[in-house]
Amino acid sequence: MKLKAGSAGATSAPDPVAPTVVLSPSEQLRPLSEGELDVLEQIGSHWAEVLRGRGGSPHTLPVDPSLRRYAEAASPTRFGRIARVRMFTQGAPDEVVETEQAGSPRSRPGGVLHSMRRLMTGPPLRSSAVMEERMRKLVALPVLASDLLSSVAYGPQAMLMVLMLAGTAALALALPISVALIVLMVAVGTSYRQTIRAYPSGAGSYLVASDNLGPRAGLAAGAGLLTDYVLTVSVSIAAGIQAITSAIPSLTPYTVELGLIAIAILLAGNLRGVRQAGYLFAAPTYAFLVAMLALIGVGLARSGVHGFAVTPPPAQMATEAVTLFLIVRAFASGATSMTGIEAVSNALPVMRPVEWRNGRTVLTVMVGLLIFLFAGLMILFHLGGIVPQANETMLSQLAHRTFGGGSLYAYVQITTALILLLAANTAFNDFPRLLFFMARDYYAPRAFLRMGDRLGFSNGIIVLAVAAATIFAVLGGRTEALIPLYAVGVFLAFTLSQAGMVVHWWRRRTRGWRRSMAINGLGATLSAVVAVAAGVTKFTEGAWIVVFGIPLAVLVCLRIRRHYDVVGRALALHALPPTARGRRFVPAPEAWRRPPQAKRPAVGQEQEESPEEIDHLAIVPIARMDLASLHALAYAASLGQPVLAVHISPDEDEATDFRRQWQRFGDPLPLEIVDSPYRAIVAPLVHYLEALHAHPAEVTLTVVVSEIVSRPLWTQALHNQVARRLRRALRPLPGVVVTTVPFHVSG
Amino acid sequence: MKLKAGSAGATSAPDPVAPTVVLSPSEQLRPLSEGELDVLEQIGSHWAEVLRGRGGSPHTLPVDPSLRRYAEAASPTRFGRIARVRMFTQGAPDEVVETEQAGSPRSRPGGVLHSMRRLMTGPPLRSSAVMEERMRKLVALPVLASDLLSSVAYGPQAMLMVLMLAGTAALALALPISVALIVLMVAVGTSYRQTIRAYPSGAGSYLVASDNLGPRAGLAAGAGLLTDYVLTVSVSIAAGIQAITSAIPSLTPYTVELGLIAIAILLAGNLRGVRQAGYLFAAPTYAFLVAMLALIGVGLARSGVHGFAVTPPPAQMATEAVTLFLIVRAFASGATSMTGIEAVSNALPVMRPVEWRNGRTVLTVMVGLLIFLFAGLMILFHLGGIVPQANETMLSQLAHRTFGGGSLYAYVQITTALILLLAANTAFNDFPRLLFFMARDYYAPRAFLRMGDRLGFSNGIIVLAVAAATIFAVLGGRTEALIPLYAVGVFLAFTLSQAGMVVHWWRRRTRGWRRSMAINGLGATLSAVVAVAAGVTKFTEGAWIVVFGIPLAVLVCLRIRRHYDVVGRALALHALPPTARGRRFVPAPEAWRRPPQAKRPAVGQEQEESPEEIDHLAIVPIARMDLASLHALAYAASLGQPVLAVHISPDEDEATDFRRQWQRFGDPLPLEIVDSPYRAIVAPLVHYLEALHAHPAEVTLTVVVSEIVSRPLWTQALHNQVARRLRRALRPLPGVVVTTVPFHVSG
Repeated sequence: MKLKAGSAGATSAPDPVAPTVVLSPSEQLRPLSEGELDVLEQIGSHWAEVLRGRGGSPHTLPVDPSLRRYAEAASPTRFGRIARVRMFTQGAPDEVVETEQAGSPRSRPGGVLHSMRRLMTGPPLRSSAVMEERMRKLVALPVLASDLLSSVAYGPQAMLMVLMLAGTAALALALPISVALIVLMVAVGTSYRQTIRAYPSGAGSYLVASDNLGPRAGLAAGAGLLTDYVLTVSVSIAAGIQAITSAIPSLTPYTVELGLIAIAILLAGNLRGVRQAGYLFAAPTYAFLVAMLALIGVGLARSGVHGFAVTPPPAQMATEAVTLFLIVRAFASGATSMTGIEAVSNALPVMRPVEWRNGRTVLTVMVGLLIFLFAGLMILFHLGGIVPQANETMLSQLAHRTFGGGSLYAYVQITTALILLLAANTAFNDFPRLLFFMARDYYAPRAFLRMGDRLGFSNGIIVLAVAAATIFAVLGGRTEALIPLYAVGVFLAFTLSQAGMVVHWWRRRTRGWRRSMAINGLGATLSAVVAVAAGVTKFTEGAWIVVFGIPLAVLVCLRIRRHYDVVGRALALHALPPTARGRRFVPAPEAWRRPPQAKRPAVGQEQEESPEEIDHLAIVPIARMDLASLHALAYAASLGQPVLAVHISPDEDEATDFRRQWQRFGDPLPLEIVDSPYRAIVAPLVHYLEALHAHPAEVTLTVVVSEIVSRPLWTQALHNQVARRLRRALRPLPGVVVTTVPFHVSG
Repeated sequence: MKLKAGSAGATSAPDPVAPTVVLSPSEQLRPLSEGELDVLEQIGSHWAEVLRGRGGSPHTLPVDPSLRRYAEAASPTRFGRIARVRMFTQGAPDEVVETEQAGSPRSRPGGVLHSMRRLMTGPPLRSSAVMEERMRKLVALPVLASDLLSSVAYGPQAMLMVLMLAGTAALALALPISVALIVLMVAVGTSYRQTIRAYPSGAGSYLVASDNLGPRAGLAAGAGLLTDYVLTVSVSIAAGIQAITSAIPSLTPYTVELGLIAIAILLAGNLRGVRQAGYLFAAPTYAFLVAMLALIGVGLARSGVHGFAVTPPPAQMATEAVTLFLIVRAFASGATSMTGIEAVSNALPVMRPVEWRNGRTVLTVMVGLLIFLFAGLMILFHLGGIVPQANETMLSQLAHRTFGGGSLYAYVQITTALILLLAANTAFNDFPRLLFFMARDYYAPRAFLRMGDRLGFSNGIIVLAVAAATIFAVLGGRTEALIPLYAVGVFLAFTLSQAGMVVHWWRRRTRGWRRSMAINGLGATLSAVVAVAAGVTKFTEGAWIVVFGIPLAVLVCLRIRRHYDVVGRALALHALPPTARGRRFVPAPEAWRRPPQAKRPAVGQEQEESPEEIDHLAIVPIARMDLASLHALAYAASLGQPVLAVHISPDEDEATDFRRQWQRFGDPLPLEIVDSPYRAIVAPLVHYLEALHAHPAEVTLTVVVSEIVSRPLWTQALHNQVARRLRRALRPLPGVVVTTVPFHVSG
């Protein structure tokens, strides 16, 4: 299991040459640098000295932290019953291991929800299971090829719909444009073969572009692909539903509902994890391939019988002239037939070793199949005079024409719908993985590093499902409205990835670099042409969202990175200042006072603090002398640090009353009354604490606030929320720690 | 200023004979009973002994709590700049007083919101200003009478609409029903005069019914009145908008919008406070009275010129037969003309002294005016043959007929709309006050005791506005849809209040008790008849909501009371157990250990704890050895109590790494690693703490968790929410205290 080594290499190496793509569950915990470890050692030796000086071993605890003696002894408590299951087992000497059952909630509604979730997603998977989630070639092919192959269900139709605007005669342009597209497919496919060889551990556009062209290009490619994945889901689901409604027109009014159900199923399936998704969805691609081969074979055979006679398409009024603009637009629409070609390069880590070799094989087979299907269908459309219609897809028309309306027709439609569903599923694999890489480089929220309890990146999966469902519903599930948004992002990513490869070969100049560079250069150029063509010709139809959205996304990513950089510097361990370094512990109370010259700066970064440098004052806000207040007061007093009770009084009479009670209490601790004539509670307290803290003594104020925790849950609304409001108001104050002492009531 | 005395009496007396109605800002802080003070004294002397034993005076603090020396010295800090204003002034010896400016927030968006709010509600009012908020009779009359008098704008019309169902002939029944209603007005009015005399400090139905018939009857009356106030707002606003749309029919489609704007204006006005509301809204009632007197005078004079000839009403198809049911229904609808008659008795505390005498005068004048207006209008409607129409109110028809369409007509419509607005405003005075009383008796959430910074009960005001706006919008602002819900609640409250008075007189037998009892008995009987009639005849039209809603509300109130009783018992100070009582402090570490026999029960109530009984163990969850973790660790170590660091590890490699780091750190404190193979963080930690706490040693676990606080606010989403989730998950655990150590980052 080489997970740790890989991930550690990625983050500790200052300039990773070949970025690793290993997915590790502990990626969120960045390892310390050697310098930080040195500082840690210095700090630790100082602390040990300080703590030894206090007398008694700090390793003597009132309880046994290993739980060895009472792993089973957990007893039910009033507010959170402990299920009588073995929750911890013994691991390494100072380690307890959580068992599976310990994750389940104990409350009744929580338990029901939990069971439903388990039913849907299956039992949690151990982190150590992560390596097993790999796919054989014969499983990887259908899963990864589905996105690419399914594109023939909407790409040709999108192209012909544009041409149709110029009338029937313009349809003759379809064949030359198809030839150009096939050239493009070969060029980009070959180009990606180079990439896979050069980046054997994972060759996603984001990684390749970042590595060779810098982070901005990488982010642009990443943002392009993210939009692409969202649209892949929307478009594939839309086309899949269309395949169904072509066969059963009465379902047409429920397009949006059916699509949302499909997305929900994909969401659930993917939360279960990669492996299951692979096996679950392997069959449809093969079934679809069989359907297409049969369709093309029978179609060509029949046409051959009639001497390949061309049926003229139905006459169509032209609403636009045949311009170069229109042709380019048709080409850009047809280029959506090859979306998904990048799937293999992204997914190399889920291939079985040797990953890059298997990946290349799968890619070659995929592109070959794509060209065969695309060419075959275009020829049959041409021969059969089939043109786009409002209520029936061209594939459905062709199947009707070839097989009639029987079970063979139904088979074609069903497998088409299934492979489109599977194509959407590919995006569910790729989108979270890309976000993982971006998050690992601090360009996306760290939450996307988190592996769910089924080892999937649940956060990314959920974000994708929500985004795709939103776009789908907003555009009413119409494929033709979604297509214009589609091509720009993909081809931008292709361009940047191939351009990155050009730079890569130029820098390395390994054997055969000239040839490789030429191939990638051609791929980059052609992709760039398509990206620009798509952006320009479809700008007003919706592509503007993507054209403006991608730069915006890049800016957001850079801003996120800037924040994490600031936080990283703030959190990094610095060497202690020399004053603290040389100081030795003196076991007298004076030693715990910070010398005045070591004053912490009021404005600026949080500084490292040694235990003996912290002066304490516990502040206990008390509204009324009841048992909850006494609890908080007793807790504060028992810490053995100075305590000050504070009472916020709404008027003077009340203040007098309270002072009298405190006298009666015997005045065991100092009390300060803050008169709040405007009856606010939180604001005056916060201001008072701020004023106290502004005092040069620089004590750490610990606000000990008692909070009534009442059951059943609705009764919580019957109590004031002062503890919660206070916590929120005090968050921004430096040097103020908030301690919540719960007081439990049930009834 | 006798505020405190009054409120203290109300809560400490076990069975208050005459419940006080003084509104005090410190009502939320229930004073201690004498028994509790005794216990407090005992506990305090024990504590003093314990704390003395620790050496050093607990009254020596590292800072000066009085802020005397540096009231002005507050310096800007990074996360919450202190405005350089004098925030505290010196009060009594151990008291600082917050100034007005201290309430203002320091962040920019917060400041803008704050300024807008101040602009709307005015500067905060001091608690000591509460007594000044009283109204002279000439101000009280318009404010309190508006609800009652404005009812003539919709009551007669509601009655005639029912009669119209039986055709034109049935309209002849209007006059006898009106006579019956006038009898009812006199009876209820006289009955309330008795009540005001008997309860000079406030005679709301809730108080009177609770006092004489028990809490359930009181709650039923209270719930009835609360629904009544909500409906008063909705109905009055609906009728007011109708007055406007009668004059300007083109505004009719905007009924709902106009109504919601009106409710928003009332909300804003009332958040400003009682006094301003009084002056602001005094004029319209007088203007309306002038309008009505002119209308009735001119109308009768004109009619007299024609020898009081009766114009026959337009012929109308009968859709129902004239049944007793219909007559009773018409009577119940007409009875809405007298809603608001209880306003004076509720509002006695805002009258100038002598309250009850002024209240009676105002009530008598009000009822006299009501009868005059009601009778006058009914006669004019009859003479003019005016019947309800869909688009124009009867009052508008009458004004048209009497004055034509000129400025006098406009004056009538405008003043009608204004007095209806003012009537809705009365509810804004009464609703929060009633909730205050119910909350003081623990039947409603304590939040309704809170006086806003303008001395109004902001929470009640807001609840009323939201409820009324919701009902108004749901029923589309149609008066006729609202009326059926209206009468039941009011007359139920009248009935219970008058029945309570019967019991009152029977018990007291003061001079003239027989006569008073007879008057109240008659009032109760007549009110009961109306309440039942309204409930039965309008049941299917919407009254069922109220008929079922009121008992439900009573149950909810009782449930709330039960909860507060449980909490009250749990919070009450109990005497210390004998073991702790006799124990003397021994200044050795052993003395701080709890003897085994004094073990706190695991299930049951929270017990009083003395500082020396609390054994501490600080738990510091650490994800990564960074500065934030070191902060938390240093804080925990500096408390001088045992510390245990806990690391939750997602896999074994990571655990090994972390253990190595800890060794490098020098192992200054004990560390426990909890292996969480399913990658959860919060759940294993909570279970681990639960298991630790289940250990017989019964230590108090303090979980010291570091929390990254980052600015600007959106960056908070880039950090994990473990601290927040941990706090929520640990809330239910007894004996677990959570301490949040903030780590501030900006960027």
